[in-house]
Amino acid sequence: MPSSPRRIPYPGAIRINVQGAFIVDDEPSRPPSSVGLRTADINGNGKNTHNRDIVLPYHTADVSHIAVDIGGSLAKLVYFTRDGDSIGGRLNFTMFETENVEDLFAFMSKLISAKRQSISEGSEETDVTSTEKKKVYIMATGGGAYKFYDRMRKELDVEICREDEMECLIVGLDFFITEIPTEVFTYSEQNPMSFVEAKADIYPYLLVNIGSGVSMIMVSGPRQFKRIGGSSLGGGTLWGLLSLLTGAKSFDEMLDMAAKGDNTNVDMLVGDIYGADYGRIGLKSSTIASSFGKVFKKRLESADGVQISDQTGNRIELYGATHENEVDVDMPRPARFRAEDISRSLLYAVSNNIGQIAYLQAQRYNLEHIYFGGSFIRGHPQTMNTLSYAIKFWSNSEKKAYFLRHEGYLGAVGAFLKRQPTGWGRRNSMEEKKESTI
Amino acid sequence: MPSSPRRIPYPGAIRINVQGAFIVDDEPSRPPSSVGLRTADINGNGKNTHNRDIVLPYHTADVSHIAVDIGGSLAKLVYFTRDGDSIGGRLNFTMFETENVEDLFAFMSKLISAKRQSISEGSEETDVTSTEKKKVYIMATGGGAYKFYDRMRKELDVEICREDEMECLIVGLDFFITEIPTEVFTYSEQNPMSFVEAKADIYPYLLVNIGSGVSMIMVSGPRQFKRIGGSSLGGGTLWGLLSLLTGAKSFDEMLDMAAKGDNTNVDMLVGDIYGADYGRIGLKSSTIASSFGKVFKKRLESADGVQISDQTGNRIELYGATHENEVDVDMPRPARFRAEDISRSLLYAVSNNIGQIAYLQAQRYNLEHIYFGGSFIRGHPQTMNTLSYAIKFWSNSEKKAYFLRHEGYLGAVGAFLKRQPTGWGRRNSMEEKKESTI
Repeated sequence: MPSSPRRIPYPGAIRINVQGAFIVDDEPSRPPSSVGLRTADINGNGKNTHNRDIVLPYHTADVSHIAVDIGGSLAKLVYFTRDGDSIGGRLNFTMFETENVEDLFAFMSKLISAKRQSISEGSEETDVTSTEKKKVYIMATGGGAYKFYDRMRKELDVEICREDEMECLIVGLDFFITEIPTEVFTYSEQNPMSFVEAKADIYPYLLVNIGSGVSMIMVSGPRQFKRIGGSSLGGGTLWGLLSLLTGAKSFDEMLDMAAKGDNTNVDMLVGDIYGADYGRIGLKSSTIASSFGKVFKKRLESADGVQISDQTGNRIELYGATHENEVDVDMPRPARFRAEDISRSLLYAVSNNIGQIAYLQAQRYNLEHIYFGGSFIRGHPQTMNTLSYAIKFWSNSEKKAYFLRHEGYLGAVGAFLKRQPTGWGRRNSMEEKKESTI
Repeated sequence: MPSSPRRIPYPGAIRINVQGAFIVDDEPSRPPSSVGLRTADINGNGKNTHNRDIVLPYHTADVSHIAVDIGGSLAKLVYFTRDGDSIGGRLNFTMFETENVEDLFAFMSKLISAKRQSISEGSEETDVTSTEKKKVYIMATGGGAYKFYDRMRKELDVEICREDEMECLIVGLDFFITEIPTEVFTYSEQNPMSFVEAKADIYPYLLVNIGSGVSMIMVSGPRQFKRIGGSSLGGGTLWGLLSLLTGAKSFDEMLDMAAKGDNTNVDMLVGDIYGADYGRIGLKSSTIASSFGKVFKKRLESADGVQISDQTGNRIELYGATHENEVDVDMPRPARFRAEDISRSLLYAVSNNIGQIAYLQAQRYNLEHIYFGGSFIRGHPQTMNTLSYAIKFWSNSEKKAYFLRHEGYLGAVGAFLKRQPTGWGRRNSMEEKKESTI
């Protein structure tokens, strides 16, 4: 909930004053593993207990709209609140699981009521009483903006502007790159968070947005972009397979397990095949030749089943006796595959694969800068390290991977920024220009 | 076992006479799903009950060596046998699981004894009695040629020539493309096996070899090649994950399940996110946005666990109660995820991904022809269809995918062909030439 609903003199208009903007960080010394959002946010409690709000100390006007990016797995929400009675306020960021769309709508409904209240209060003073101006708008993007459009309009009784998902992603990313300090960083094991100076000359670049699936977007100028590729092997694949294989119930649980795992117990390395390096073609002994390549053969050694243990050592039983009805859970056997090792292997596999495809696309279009966004990353060191390493390895250090502290909110922030006063000509002309570049 | 050990007058020399060569096919009307090797071969019984032997009707000399390609999961064996007392013979192909290396060695030992016997018989007539010429050689490639080198020498008491894996792959592929009729084909649903005429002008091309892992090799001329990339997401990944998730015990069982599955029960489609097409960027409603993208959310709906059913409808239980010790298998619940659907989804995901990376590499090096080899494919229609479709889709039909009936034996055949008489100068000079191109 917005902490202090305020009067909104000119609802509908947004010109964000980013002067002096900074990211709130309650625990600045936290390790990079918690840079991203945490479970509390994912649960969509809207309380921002682990927030990364962006404070806008000189922004005076309130904002009468809220923005939502409803993806396949997560719905991301961005809205503005005033900080008490002084000037200035903050952008708030929160997430819900798309599956819990009722919770999302309930939260948005409260926000809308508060916004309407502040518009009414504002209108008493400024005499802006038209029905039009009392309206609160929702800027919506992502597939859910279409899928839930009718339901959202009906349940929230609100005007909804739908915006193109890819365009919102790059508008949001442009904003973060150019306007917000200590937002963009590079990752290395030696220096996990090396911030990049905001700069104007950012084009062309590649955006790799990793949500449930992966989209790769070449950006050649402001609002000039093209979706050049993608992959179905994304966050949804990792979360789905790991929920089946490890019994983990949240993304963070999976990432915590991955951090403790040893993938070499399940992955087949070059050294496992060769007994050494395969020097002639430059493959080190430690290179992963086949993700999960050790599982099938180990499984065959076990006569009647496979055992997986979760991170607490409890056995998770998977029965291979597919043509028999027996289920003999009472017979204790040593666990062969640890949930931690499986988690690490799959995290590596998915991240590496995305990194390689990103490199190949960047190479193809001669793009040096690669920004990784999306809720898959979540500030997780191993994920960023794998993505960074893949880009470095494949490009011989010629290309660079960048990350963002608000990596999951590119689309929502882009939708938020796209709201402009009715009748503005500039926006329409820009829309036309953009269309011609697709 | 060779059916008829024969005298070998000049052991060590190989000049294969491919005139009139043809592939034995006991069941020529079999659907393409069984074009590849089947379980009996994989189990390495060496009986070639489902063989694809290549008959060489005019080849007169016996061959004193056998070739083996020992990969991470499978060991492939190629050897020559005479057909009775007439001229002519055949190349035999068989496989063992690398894990069962004892069985492989036992089989090779029998072959070697038979070869030695025929050399001795030959030497009585031709007076070639030197110890050198009584030797039977093993041409070995793949990582196992290094890993098992000492053990193989000791247990088999035999000379072993180790050959580079990548080079053997392309030597074998060149042989199949240029010398063996009805070996290479293209795949489409309308025409599952459209044979390609053998031709001399084959360069440049891309070989995508899919075993446990994936290697991509650009071939620009005879023995001129470079490994340009690869992926750890290969056959080992599919086999490993599916053995965990479905309880299947063989590759063919997994493929049979995949053939019956419906991936849309586990994959998140564009339509699941948008409720329709995402027409603006050309993504159809039926496009897979996220492999396994439906699993996590469905899993959350289930309060205390996930159920997987195998292909016979038996439940395979996976417990999500990771912080509790309870395991309540007695409570029946409806299965949520079918093993068939999971198999199909993962087969699609792995094949699609390889197809996309192959396309990007082919695009990068301007290669029009893409040959898919390796034991992953196994003549499976869905695999070939997915690979073909990926190449067609990404390249706008500008590039073409080719398959082989002996797809798993490229390396073994290459090693077989590389054996040449001791002291031949030509081979050494070719080796040097090739080195300079890497």
